[in-house]
Amino acid sequence: MPTSELASRIVHPPAFSEMAYKQAKRGLIDFFASALAASQDGAVKNILRLLDEPAAGSVPVIGQGMSASPAQAALLNGFIGHVLDYDDVHEDVRGHPSTVIVPALLSALNFGQVSGKRFLEAYIVGVETMAVLGKTIGKNHYERGFHNTSTLGGIASAAACSYLLGFTEEETAVAIGFAATQASGLRVQFGTEAKPLHAGLAAQAGYQAVAFTKAGLSGSKNVLDGNTGFLSVYGNGVEGVEAHLQAFGKPWKIVTPGLWFKQYPFCSAAHQGADAIRSMLAESPFNLDDVERIDVIYPPGGDAALVHQRPITGEQGRFSIEYVLTLAIDGQDLSLENFTTKPIRNEYSQFFERITRIHSTTIQASEHAVPKGRFTRIECHLKNGKCVTKQVDLPKGAPKAPLSMEELTSKLTASAPYHADGLLQAIEELIESESVCLSM
Amino acid sequence: MPTSELASRIVHPPAFSEMAYKQAKRGLIDFFASALAASQDGAVKNILRLLDEPAAGSVPVIGQGMSASPAQAALLNGFIGHVLDYDDVHEDVRGHPSTVIVPALLSALNFGQVSGKRFLEAYIVGVETMAVLGKTIGKNHYERGFHNTSTLGGIASAAACSYLLGFTEEETAVAIGFAATQASGLRVQFGTEAKPLHAGLAAQAGYQAVAFTKAGLSGSKNVLDGNTGFLSVYGNGVEGVEAHLQAFGKPWKIVTPGLWFKQYPFCSAAHQGADAIRSMLAESPFNLDDVERIDVIYPPGGDAALVHQRPITGEQGRFSIEYVLTLAIDGQDLSLENFTTKPIRNEYSQFFERITRIHSTTIQASEHAVPKGRFTRIECHLKNGKCVTKQVDLPKGAPKAPLSMEELTSKLTASAPYHADGLLQAIEELIESESVCLSM
Repeated sequence: MPTSELASRIVHPPAFSEMAYKQAKRGLIDFFASALAASQDGAVKNILRLLDEPAAGSVPVIGQGMSASPAQAALLNGFIGHVLDYDDVHEDVRGHPSTVIVPALLSALNFGQVSGKRFLEAYIVGVETMAVLGKTIGKNHYERGFHNTSTLGGIASAAACSYLLGFTEEETAVAIGFAATQASGLRVQFGTEAKPLHAGLAAQAGYQAVAFTKAGLSGSKNVLDGNTGFLSVYGNGVEGVEAHLQAFGKPWKIVTPGLWFKQYPFCSAAHQGADAIRSMLAESPFNLDDVERIDVIYPPGGDAALVHQRPITGEQGRFSIEYVLTLAIDGQDLSLENFTTKPIRNEYSQFFERITRIHSTTIQASEHAVPKGRFTRIECHLKNGKCVTKQVDLPKGAPKAPLSMEELTSKLTASAPYHADGLLQAIEELIESESVCLSM
Repeated sequence: MPTSELASRIVHPPAFSEMAYKQAKRGLIDFFASALAASQDGAVKNILRLLDEPAAGSVPVIGQGMSASPAQAALLNGFIGHVLDYDDVHEDVRGHPSTVIVPALLSALNFGQVSGKRFLEAYIVGVETMAVLGKTIGKNHYERGFHNTSTLGGIASAAACSYLLGFTEEETAVAIGFAATQASGLRVQFGTEAKPLHAGLAAQAGYQAVAFTKAGLSGSKNVLDGNTGFLSVYGNGVEGVEAHLQAFGKPWKIVTPGLWFKQYPFCSAAHQGADAIRSMLAESPFNLDDVERIDVIYPPGGDAALVHQRPITGEQGRFSIEYVLTLAIDGQDLSLENFTTKPIRNEYSQFFERITRIHSTTIQASEHAVPKGRFTRIECHLKNGKCVTKQVDLPKGAPKAPLSMEELTSKLTASAPYHADGLLQAIEELIESESVCLSM
């Protein structure tokens, strides 16, 4: 039965590899970088109004110098981690694992401290569970309209917290059940603040699932199974689950296929284009005045998430290849300060008119493309008659083109100049620590 | 578009009838009777452990003499209202409206007091929304494995709270969206404490939906609509929604078809059988030893909610027609003390073997059957060769066989001998009250 077999693997996982621990530490650095980058975000300020009622909470709210109750902190931290869409992505999940799993784990520490090593392992187990569920539930789940980050993230969080707290197989199965029966999140919410809210709600659901189990409530031990179980109701049934369960931890999915850490604080569909223009400019510099016109070529639908062709603010610019290219050609950094609510300069708005999106079915992406089949080709026609072309299929930051440790560290330093050193040290030392103490 | 049309009706409902107000008051009496009956329940004591962290909450937890934060109080009160499965049922909903809607409303009062009349109206609007959604989403939703009480209850709660707080149409649409994107609850959890938890989680989701809206978070205004909207993902699409929306408040569904207030503290699917066996025994008494075998005949699927054919505890017995019949034949009361976590006697377990469930497509339910098409026929084959038969289609407590005001009041008095008088008076006076003050 899928539920009991999954629970058994969560409680008795295969040996954790050095690479898995290392990648978990990198995942934490990237998660905190993504969350701390949102410290001053307007949506974060809005959701914090939920805390108006003075809460005697004990779990820190990341980057806000305040605490909340464990359930509410899970909600807030999941939201904060995903609000900029700057956090990691996992191919098997088709969504964002760390922004759900890590906040749930931070709240679950409220039940009692554990070693830093166990915390890392719990995170690895969470990502593994989410990847196994993602592979099992298949494409149809997402295409029907569900948002995998939250539907699968809550269950993965419950799995991670169950491991963290040393649950038995039976308790783990019950906790998975409490999470699966909270599985929700609709893609129609994309483009609104409900999207990051999904991450927070899933973290809350995962935390609550273990809290209900700790409280001794009875629940189904077979929630994934059968015709009316989670895998059938939300997916195509239990077919294939056996093979995916066999592959639990073999290899650890946090390493292979691995987490994609984003280099830029904007939508991942603009990352290949950003890499292409920067590489082009490094080889042969030019500026806005030199440009006659630019064609940006995608596979059909490859730019669907880039909903703003004529953005008005830097925030809208997170979903605009036009804005990203213009910034780069103007020699600006593709960093946080250019993606805020501030209005975009007139000069840039005029330049957008020179940029055209084109969809091509004849250009092929390489086999290493991430996501599969995605490419972005930039064709710059300069006023001097030259045409410069560059295609990128594999964005920097994806598992096969990883950020260096220095690049990852810089992401954290840029997000939180004052916190970065202490946090980096604490994460680095986790594996030897008797308890988890991360200053947020 | 369904979402905006529903929001428009919530904000500008048809006139409220005297009968609607009256029925809302009866609904509150029944809700508090059902919730207060659970004051000493073991599962309630367990879930209250979630409150271990001292919460500076301001919303009362029913029957517990303590308060919690609004989100947590909604969760706890929804759970407490449904834990005995003693709370009301609505035919159009195929689930339990009040235990989700009323707790969400009690928490939403935290945003500011309203008149007692507005509180009653908000409750009427919530039941209406849940009924409209139930009719629109159709049978398939429940049969696939979803638990309507929670999937539809969260949205209905958000609708009720939106009305309570005087939201605009746009705010109401956004709040509905935040609730729909939290829609969850799997029937595989039936027979465990996750079932009442679904009610609590849905109340929490409904409360949170309005809290997110109040906090100024952006969200979809069209969550029910389109191919990947709620009605398509969770149901068969938007077909028919127009007609159901036209019927919003015409008549008010809290009156017609009306709420079914339960006479017994167990699953409604066993009520017809309970009425049948009691009536049979009243006419010609017999005891367990007299019985050769019993056939219990349902329409196909009519006993789907009665998941325990061989219950081990009284709690499981809430979902067992076998247990209910055995208790009645043994001359026991079908009252709270027989549906606790206590193990079921061996003698009863042996008697279960004499009871067989049969599904018939030839027997017809009368047109008054509740739910429509549901009947339960008991055929007792006695050792003396006699066969006694009784069929009940319309259970006592259902809208067409309503509990008298005295019976309803007795339900509250039995549940809460000390609170009943004060609570009854406060509910009776609500319609004239400037604020809502219910001592719980």
